[in-house]
Amino acid sequence: MTAGPRHLDDGKRPRQLSELAALVSGEVLGDPSLPIAGVAGLEQAQAGHLSFYGNQKYKKQLQASKASAVLVPRDSAPSDRGVVYVRVDNPHLAFARIAQEFAPKRTYTPGIAAGAFVDASAQVDPSATVMAGATISAGARVGARSVVGPGCYLGERTRIGDDSVLVANVSVLEECLVGSRCLLHPGVVLGADGFGFAFDASVPAHIKIPQTGIVRVEDDVEIGANSCVDRATTGETVVGHGAKIDNLVQVGHNSVIGPMSILCAQVGLSGSTELGTGVVLAGQVGVAGHLRIGDLAKVGAQAGVMSDVDDGATVLGAPQMPAKDFMRSAAVFSRLPELQRQVRELLKRLEALEGDEKTP
Amino acid sequence: MTAGPRHLDDGKRPRQLSELAALVSGEVLGDPSLPIAGVAGLEQAQAGHLSFYGNQKYKKQLQASKASAVLVPRDSAPSDRGVVYVRVDNPHLAFARIAQEFAPKRTYTPGIAAGAFVDASAQVDPSATVMAGATISAGARVGARSVVGPGCYLGERTRIGDDSVLVANVSVLEECLVGSRCLLHPGVVLGADGFGFAFDASVPAHIKIPQTGIVRVEDDVEIGANSCVDRATTGETVVGHGAKIDNLVQVGHNSVIGPMSILCAQVGLSGSTELGTGVVLAGQVGVAGHLRIGDLAKVGAQAGVMSDVDDGATVLGAPQMPAKDFMRSAAVFSRLPELQRQVRELLKRLEALEGDEKTP
Amino acid sequence: MTAGPRHLDDGKRPRQLSELAALVSGEVLGDPSLPIAGVAGLEQAQAGHLSFYGNQKYKKQLQASKASAVLVPRDSAPSDRGVVYVRVDNPHLAFARIAQEFAPKRTYTPGIAAGAFVDASAQVDPSATVMAGATISAGARVGARSVVGPGCYLGERTRIGDDSVLVANVSVLEECLVGSRCLLHPGVVLGADGFGFAFDASVPAHIKIPQTGIVRVEDDVEIGANSCVDRATTGETVVGHGAKIDNLVQVGHNSVIGPMSILCAQVGLSGSTELGTGVVLAGQVGVAGHLRIGDLAKVGAQAGVMSDVDDGATVLGAPQMPAKDFMRSAAVFSRLPELQRQVRELLKRLEALEGDEKTP
Repeated sequence: MTAGPRHLDDGKRPRQLSELAALVSGEVLGDPSLPIAGVAGLEQAQAGHLSFYGNQKYKKQLQASKASAVLVPRDSAPSDRGVVYVRVDNPHLAFARIAQEFAPKRTYTPGIAAGAFVDASAQVDPSATVMAGATISAGARVGARSVVGPGCYLGERTRIGDDSVLVANVSVLEECLVGSRCLLHPGVVLGADGFGFAFDASVPAHIKIPQTGIVRVEDDVEIGANSCVDRATTGETVVGHGAKIDNLVQVGHNSVIGPMSILCAQVGLSGSTELGTGVVLAGQVGVAGHLRIGDLAKVGAQAGVMSDVDDGATVLGAPQMPAKDFMRSAAVFSRLPELQRQVRELLKRLEALEGDEKTP
Repeated sequence: MTAGPRHLDDGKRPRQLSELAALVSGEVLGDPSLPIAGVAGLEQAQAGHLSFYGNQKYKKQLQASKASAVLVPRDSAPSDRGVVYVRVDNPHLAFARIAQEFAPKRTYTPGIAAGAFVDASAQVDPSATVMAGATISAGARVGARSVVGPGCYLGERTRIGDDSVLVANVSVLEECLVGSRCLLHPGVVLGADGFGFAFDASVPAHIKIPQTGIVRVEDDVEIGANSCVDRATTGETVVGHGAKIDNLVQVGHNSVIGPMSILCAQVGLSGSTELGTGVVLAGQVGVAGHLRIGDLAKVGAQAGVMSDVDDGATVLGAPQMPAKDFMRSAAVFSRLPELQRQVRELLKRLEALEGDEKTP
Repeated sequence: MTAGPRHLDDGKRPRQLSELAALVSGEVLGDPSLPIAGVAGLEQAQAGHLSFYGNQKYKKQLQASKASAVLVPRDSAPSDRGVVYVRVDNPHLAFARIAQEFAPKRTYTPGIAAGAFVDASAQVDPSATVMAGATISAGARVGARSVVGPGCYLGERTRIGDDSVLVANVSVLEECLVGSRCLLHPGVVLGADGFGFAFDASVPAHIKIPQTGIVRVEDDVEIGANSCVDRATTGETVVGHGAKIDNLVQVGHNSVIGPMSILCAQVGLSGSTELGTGVVLAGQVGVAGHLRIGDLAKVGAQAGVMSDVDDGATVLGAPQMPAKDFMRSAAVFSRLPELQRQVRELLKRLEALEGDEKTP
């Protein structure tokens, strides 16, 4: 038997609604013995499914949903369509908890598969799984129950904590550290050189500034497919505990991402950017170097952050400004030709008046 | 002999122009026996090459081209430089057809190469090619004449149709489906987890919403290097038949890309985005979640789509607006300081007039 | 002993400051015998470190730095805090030179590792290193002292020069050429098909335009993690000597990047873009096709280049404009609602005046 393959329990045993409601302190407005076969979003749900409704924006989807039961906020009235509502404090969170009940559980056969290349000086916990096509270099360490998937590369003296999964084709370059319970999706690159050069006009050539620091990824971090976190010039580039990074994100050298921050797809951080705790950067945001984005700040999609952002601020635009101001300015932007026309007309009429004055 | 290597016929046998013109119902304005050694764009073409001219924008390049023959629209006058023109309905399309005649044909040695890791329960068609360093998991299926290149990873119960090519280092994660005649370039990731979390302030932590759906890629799809299509939370993320996706594109969970849509490089789709048939998204476009972009709509480069887009619309900007309106507004944007100055001057002159009125 | 692993000399032997200053023709303002244990940026530096200060923007960081010695411009006054200043012509460049002294030197064991797949017709220099999990195809050539890391794929008839390093999971597709002293970070893809299709309404389908050209990467080029350079339709896509490309960059088919150009993270070039010598594109810039960006031009972050850029220009915005003009227009943009209000008020007051005139 080959080591390494995953085993999936498809998790699809039906449960009683009351059993699920109990997990999230929910109040069932209807038949508590309703069998629930699975969970799904309002639009994907079929009969037998439990869904959730937490945002008024999706009222139409709620009305149209085929779900048999829906998690709703505490103050909700019962359904007028015979759907069983379950009142909870936070429908989105309750959905996450219940969805985990139905999720397939992956298990892995411990051991180093034939076709994996593990240096004799590497320390792989016996409960860990190393799949075929993985390469683990000298002095690397892999913790208990962690998984190193096919095509993954662990450089010299890297360290992976416990219960972390490197899915496939992940590269963790020398000296970099990954915590426990991390999930690194395919194509993630940790520890490529930071982008630093000094121009020497006498050659002429860009002279490389050696990048001798590391990347440190703390516990409970998820990093999306093909995202990159560069090693520090000196010291560390840090992804704080519980941070979640989406696909195709770029984190420049010496950046520090605060705990529980959220970076959506295609975000780019220049060097030495500091994000506080619980920062949210929406998709395609760019952040210039040597800036701080404060705790709990939110940056809207495609914004270009060119200066520090205060704790708790919500900003948008490039250069960024308060999001409400941006939306107001953007509304005027779409009418700029009209505004320009008005100004020209004003000028004409004013000139006419001025002319009249002079020739009374 | 090792299985797996490609064999290339370089396709460079010269052809008579008349033979090529016949393939595209072309009318030759000149010597039909002209030997054609290959095809090339107007700027790259050398003597002996056939090129094409379909867009007035490139008139200068047409005049300067060294091509011996050029595919031109039906209503074109003969060349004034002795170049042989070939009148066709659609020069760009005719060029594509003829270029395929000259393209090297790749052939692959069927079989599973030494150094490939294929689970005993996987079903690989005998006519398929699996190269060294590829990993195929339990229950996976690979169709006739398909190619799984080095470093590719097929997860449990994935399915690849017939005549598809996964070039190298492609990851297709468990349960995901790829159709026939698809081309997946290196580094493509299908089926990484969608980006979904619910915040639990009592921990505090982001709680993962399990992503238990799949990705379904229909037939005749091409996906560019390092692009990512996330698996659905529940249900499917779909790339419709004949869609073409460029490099470094992000497709969020539960998005549905309509047939024959075109996504240029670095486009990002949030979750549950729906693209109709034949949609074109230019480079670096971002699209917010839960929106619909209608059939045949065109979205210009770097646009940020924040609301639904009508069938056939052409939009630009962030938030998007009709492209012509954006260009007009952008023209005024570049003169905003002048506009502001004018308004200030108007105000002064108006105040002067008002002052005159009060003191007659 | 397995071939391929890297050996690192950690480079951390302390040096006398005078010895380091001599390397960069520096004038030491203080104790030349000061022992220096390493280098670091102003913010990361600890006692015993040498740092640099070249930009007034970082005056605060200079004052707060714990560095024992700092490279400063020639005209600097001595430190008022007892830090030893070293006067040099170009502090950033001097820092790069000295940092190289302290950087760990990587050495590789020459040879082809067990677990690498090398076609019998490939020519690998005996001094080169091919690591486990690498695949080298028929007719490929790897030069002296070059390194092909785990999971790298070299297609048919590719060529890698001398002293180049392909770190891990790099794909270089058939016929593509890489020069000497190049550094390709993990996940780089060279030679995926350019994105070219012609629509055939009679099917309907997008017909592929075969991409039969190559990518040519000249000497001394560095390309960041997961960046992509597409092969030309015909002819070559070129990355000129000494160019430096950051992570997640897209270079479209037939683009030509001039020598010593700098492309920051997430830049996207459409097809047939031409960059002159020493061009700098900041992060997330997009460039439309068939354009020229002149020598030494600088394009600011997130700009959208829609027309040619002159030699030496500094531009910003989308469509791009002179950077100073953009910043002025952006300042007015943030006050657009106020400007609109003023125009409306002007109109009212003007109407009042006009009314007065008519009824004297």
